[in-house]
Amino acid sequence: MVFYLIGLGLGDEQDITLRGLETVRWCARVYLEAYTSVLPVDVARLERQYGQRVMLADREMVEDGADDLLHGADTSDVALLVVGDVFWATTHQDLWLRARRRGIECAVVHNAGIMNAVGVCGLQMYRFGETISLVWFTERWRPTSWYPRLAANRQRGLHTLCLLDIRVKEPTEESLARGKPVYEAPRFMSVAEAAQQLLQVAAWRRERRNGQANPTNDAEAPEPYCACAEAYTAQTLGIGLARAGQATQQILVGTLEQLARAELGPPLHALIIPGELHALEAEFVATLPQVSGRQ
Amino acid sequence: MVFYLIGLGLGDEQDITLRGLETVRWCARVYLEAYTSVLPVDVARLERQYGQRVMLADREMVEDGADDLLHGADTSDVALLVVGDVFWATTHQDLWLRARRRGIECAVVHNAGIMNAVGVCGLQMYRFGETISLVWFTERWRPTSWYPRLAANRQRGLHTLCLLDIRVKEPTEESLARGKPVYEAPRFMSVAEAAQQLLQVAAWRRERRNGQANPTNDAEAPEPYCACAEAYTAQTLGIGLARAGQATQQILVGTLEQLARAELGPPLHALIIPGELHALEAEFVATLPQVSGRQ
Repeated sequence: MVFYLIGLGLGDEQDITLRGLETVRWCARVYLEAYTSVLPVDVARLERQYGQRVMLADREMVEDGADDLLHGADTSDVALLVVGDVFWATTHQDLWLRARRRGIECAVVHNAGIMNAVGVCGLQMYRFGETISLVWFTERWRPTSWYPRLAANRQRGLHTLCLLDIRVKEPTEESLARGKPVYEAPRFMSVAEAAQQLLQVAAWRRERRNGQANPTNDAEAPEPYCACAEAYTAQTLGIGLARAGQATQQILVGTLEQLARAELGPPLHALIIPGELHALEAEFVATLPQVSGRQ
Repeated sequence: MVFYLIGLGLGDEQDITLRGLETVRWCARVYLEAYTSVLPVDVARLERQYGQRVMLADREMVEDGADDLLHGADTSDVALLVVGDVFWATTHQDLWLRARRRGIECAVVHNAGIMNAVGVCGLQMYRFGETISLVWFTERWRPTSWYPRLAANRQRGLHTLCLLDIRVKEPTEESLARGKPVYEAPRFMSVAEAAQQLLQVAAWRRERRNGQANPTNDAEAPEPYCACAEAYTAQTLGIGLARAGQATQQILVGTLEQLARAELGPPLHALIIPGELHALEAEFVATLPQVSGRQ
């Protein structure tokens, strides 16, 4: 029997493929992976469309052994539905390997993910460099390993897709210290927060160059102070992309300074930092909604 | 009214999304873009599934003005179906812009493309660098601008997706010189041909370092002789991916030397050159079919 990973695409219950729908309908059990992304519709809508009960698979279920998830997949078909495409998160590759190790056959039904949706910004897909992830800074943890990656992309004239932090069923730092997890409310980083963080790091680099005291612990976060050239300034162009591939999708072009004050509504958000724009790309970007109100 | 660009996904008529199918059914005219990729099934199968006549849009129709394609799109809905996702080829962005310039509203229905399908090789999507395109060398034209890009990806430890040449309705060089186009038979570069071309360029670089006469005109193709470090050797690992996302999909892992002799069957093919493999990636790649027969 087969363990299926099935991409749902970016929108709602209408974005599954015919192949995906057919597969879901014949599976004995169907799970929805509900923590690396967020489904913009109610699970009940999926169930009505699929004619199948859809169970939520949370972080613990997917990551910790996956015994429940894979139980019986050697004797009947089991599906895990994933928002977007199936292989964006390490989690799903890990799950695939664990299933294979148990001798369970695995199959995939692909669908569109954020990397497809980003095409609506008019940037060439093959001119994107390494994707980076921005996570919220805390008092103790300010990961900036993305900085030299972004700088390297920019130096090569490449576009950068910045994936923004998603915190679903994350234990609080205090509760972890006490050994009994208490979960934070779900949070999704906005384009404005991402732009603010980029500007914050640029400010830290300036302070450092000026010999001022540094607010971060270099040993924990050495990267923004690496010798690489500045990756961007407050005037660097960014493209905010909210709810990509959904009916309420919103795109906004502006400088990082402008985007730091922009409001793009409900999650998920992504930030794209274009590299050098070819003529066609520049023309396309000029047709997108601009912070300044021009279009 | 609306001009829709609708991704068909990578397989057959079952890979369209429910949203895509619904959209196709209400459109007044439906075209299939049939030259930047190749549909693995007969158009008649699409027509049966969609309950709509599907007209082929060839290169001239899509690129030269698009008058026929967009005719009437201001008064009735028109769809262009694209194999994979819609925004991989510059062509489709160009078409979108031309429609917008005529005041026609445009919309997109995303689907999986090669960048999604590549996930089945177990490499992390966010660790891919710039995508490169390999085209067949001719006597007069040996474009190698991909070399420094591949080298830069490799230097940063990033994976590289190599898209392989597709020649559909290409006029022959002789016929162009005579001013009356005669078209070549469709050709699709195989993983073996791609690996052979990589090895050929490595050999040219070696000859050049050894001061030997150079078979190419440096002014036309300076890149493989740029000062960048060697991007790969014959022993570099590659992953051949044939018919990605289709039922007959085939994956083969081997050195470039091994892949240069590999047979992966019908098109389309893609070649992936992994960068540094993280532990999970290495474990996943080890489970894939290997040229050596190990798995």
